[in-house]
Amino acid sequence: MTEPDWGATAQDWLVRLARCSEPGPGVTRLPFTPEHRTALVVLTDLMQQAELNVSLDAAGTLIGRLEGPIGAPTLLMGSHQDSVREGGAYDGIMGVVLPVLALMKLRAEGLRLPFAVEVLAFADEEGVRFPTALMGPRALAGRFEMAALDLCDREGITLRAAMEGFGLAPDEIPGLSRDPARVMGWIETHLEQGPVLEQAGKALGIVTAICGIERHSITLTGQAAHAGTVPMRLRRDALTGAAELALAAEDLARATPDLLATVGALQIRPGVVNAVPGEAVMTLEIRSPSDRAREIAGAELTDRARQIAQHRGLNLSITRSYAQSATQCAPDILSRLSQAVSDGGQDAVHLPSGATHDASAMADLCPIGMLFTDCKDGISHHPDEYVSPQSMTCAVHSLTRVIRSYDPAPPQKPD
Amino acid sequence: MTEPDWGATAQDWLVRLARCSEPGPGVTRLPFTPEHRTALVVLTDLMQQAELNVSLDAAGTLIGRLEGPIGAPTLLMGSHQDSVREGGAYDGIMGVVLPVLALMKLRAEGLRLPFAVEVLAFADEEGVRFPTALMGPRALAGRFEMAALDLCDREGITLRAAMEGFGLAPDEIPGLSRDPARVMGWIETHLEQGPVLEQAGKALGIVTAICGIERHSITLTGQAAHAGTVPMRLRRDALTGAAELALAAEDLARATPDLLATVGALQIRPGVVNAVPGEAVMTLEIRSPSDRAREIAGAELTDRARQIAQHRGLNLSITRSYAQSATQCAPDILSRLSQAVSDGGQDAVHLPSGATHDASAMADLCPIGMLFTDCKDGISHHPDEYVSPQSMTCAVHSLTRVIRSYDPAPPQKPD
Repeated sequence: MTEPDWGATAQDWLVRLARCSEPGPGVTRLPFTPEHRTALVVLTDLMQQAELNVSLDAAGTLIGRLEGPIGAPTLLMGSHQDSVREGGAYDGIMGVVLPVLALMKLRAEGLRLPFAVEVLAFADEEGVRFPTALMGPRALAGRFEMAALDLCDREGITLRAAMEGFGLAPDEIPGLSRDPARVMGWIETHLEQGPVLEQAGKALGIVTAICGIERHSITLTGQAAHAGTVPMRLRRDALTGAAELALAAEDLARATPDLLATVGALQIRPGVVNAVPGEAVMTLEIRSPSDRAREIAGAELTDRARQIAQHRGLNLSITRSYAQSATQCAPDILSRLSQAVSDGGQDAVHLPSGATHDASAMADLCPIGMLFTDCKDGISHHPDEYVSPQSMTCAVHSLTRVIRSYDPAPPQKPD
Repeated sequence: MTEPDWGATAQDWLVRLARCSEPGPGVTRLPFTPEHRTALVVLTDLMQQAELNVSLDAAGTLIGRLEGPIGAPTLLMGSHQDSVREGGAYDGIMGVVLPVLALMKLRAEGLRLPFAVEVLAFADEEGVRFPTALMGPRALAGRFEMAALDLCDREGITLRAAMEGFGLAPDEIPGLSRDPARVMGWIETHLEQGPVLEQAGKALGIVTAICGIERHSITLTGQAAHAGTVPMRLRRDALTGAAELALAAEDLARATPDLLATVGALQIRPGVVNAVPGEAVMTLEIRSPSDRAREIAGAELTDRARQIAQHRGLNLSITRSYAQSATQCAPDILSRLSQAVSDGGQDAVHLPSGATHDASAMADLCPIGMLFTDCKDGISHHPDEYVSPQSMTCAVHSLTRVIRSYDPAPPQKPD
């Protein structure tokens, strides 16, 4: 029997799944919607072709389970089924399709595993419809806050009502929590959503950690003034103060390994050609796989903002509005992924993930690891999002090797 | 007879004139409106108390004329009657009141001048109602473009219709042009609209030149990106490019005498906390009393923008959207004003005017000069605009000395 082209197979399934979308450019598939329903039908078909037992849990997570011996622990894999509005065909959903294909490949090879494997398709990771996210992994980790069920989408529908309308019983969510002793780990496959692998010419990368994030809301207030009548030395220009801070953040991040610092939003007032800006309202976001490095950077840039404000006679308001710790990937899983990728003849590129993933919440349950595929031009959350079949083939092969690595007993059959 | 308190008298008239306003904060008095009409009634009263002959020309300029000997030339003084929306009680109109009071004072002193003096209250300097301005002085200089009569205000009323509704005959504007040989000069009194005199502790300043202005429209285009997934070295951040340019403009202006450079407007896209900005649209305005210095600065900052764009991998669009030459004040008038101020026991502070004035257009007709008063906190175009009676007294006294300076014949009476 000829080995299927796993990348091409993945691509076919992803095309089918991309049709499970609201009309419009790209893919729009929000949780507990008709599009979610049709995607579950397609995923169920896929999982059943891999001879997995398919079920839907109370949090809306579709589970494809390869049963193991009685009492054996379970290896968890997967990602999320939902997309952003007008997003792409790979983000999330590819991380469901590829491990199912890996299990299909292992079954074709006649492998019997001494443990169970579940591939999970979480309902909502993007948090687009409701002002919450990650409910599936939080439920498994016993960290789901039931109060979130009262949150509303923009049409005023509560999360509870949306889930009940989808045929779920959200009151049963507390019963979903897993016993950590029975879970071997969580391995998530995802596109990188950035340009690092593509620039390095690598199909696959291994995530070392999911970056922590902190956000600061900053207002610099000077004095709006006529741009013709106030000499430079008497100005209190809020924009040039903001400019200095944006460049200081960029300089610091450039000089610090794996640190990202971004001024993403900046508004100035009055904002007309002939007025010195009197107010600048800006955001500063800092990410790092090291919480300590991030916090040092946050404190340093806060100090810098104070110095700039003092030096320029500006008033400063700076508030850390959000902070989320980094999640370290488990060294054991990281090393299994590295071995699996290099056994496929590739170097293992290690990199932090700047974006949050289901893995961030799964870390509350079990050791986690993530496999990244490269993506075209680093684009994601966009209709142009693309992962090549070749990269997906590499990922399927690597995932089979990782799964095999947990099976100490039989000698591995040749690939 | 006790000498009147000229500053207090000016203040009383300016309070009456401030009531000639649309309802709302501060003063809103646009040209060819009922508020303009009531202001002309008050100004006519004032001018008649100074025994001036009052008339309204076809451009809506109110003229108070002190007749001179037959065939004698005319010294022109004044400013504009209109305000910005929600502006102050001094901008423009104070420059009409104070020279009328100076003539009142000279008349009280029994002086007979060997020339005529006219105090002019131009209809429209601010250009708030119609997308044109300075029609009064342009008419006198023979530079009024008749096509401007077809421009509309925001209610769709043409300038021509507004003027005709005001009882004017705009077709007669070409006949208003004066013979330069019959005009001695234009002396305009105005509040500084900036903080220089107040900071220097001086009531009066003498304008050396009215700055030229150029404006550039700039767009920097990089690549919008996820703030978590694109490493610093692979970013093409339009905002940090814009920040570098804003600081370069500030640095250059700080290092160049009398140069002003302002980034007044800046918008970035997408403008959200977790996205690297892909586009920055900004303005750059440069002002200087020296056209050469301004043009060198414009070229230097354009080069700098190109360097920044190249260095950062950004696309640059930069267009000089507006340019207006500087207007030099006449050395003769400048020296008469200096003498007049220092004869009052003050140092003569010389400074450029960063704002445009009626004098800019009058320079096409005759030599010009400007006397500035200080203003509280440098504020203008705002309800809080304020000039103290003390400063206005100094101005009235200086204006009488300047007028006297043109009269070579009789020995000056003591002040």
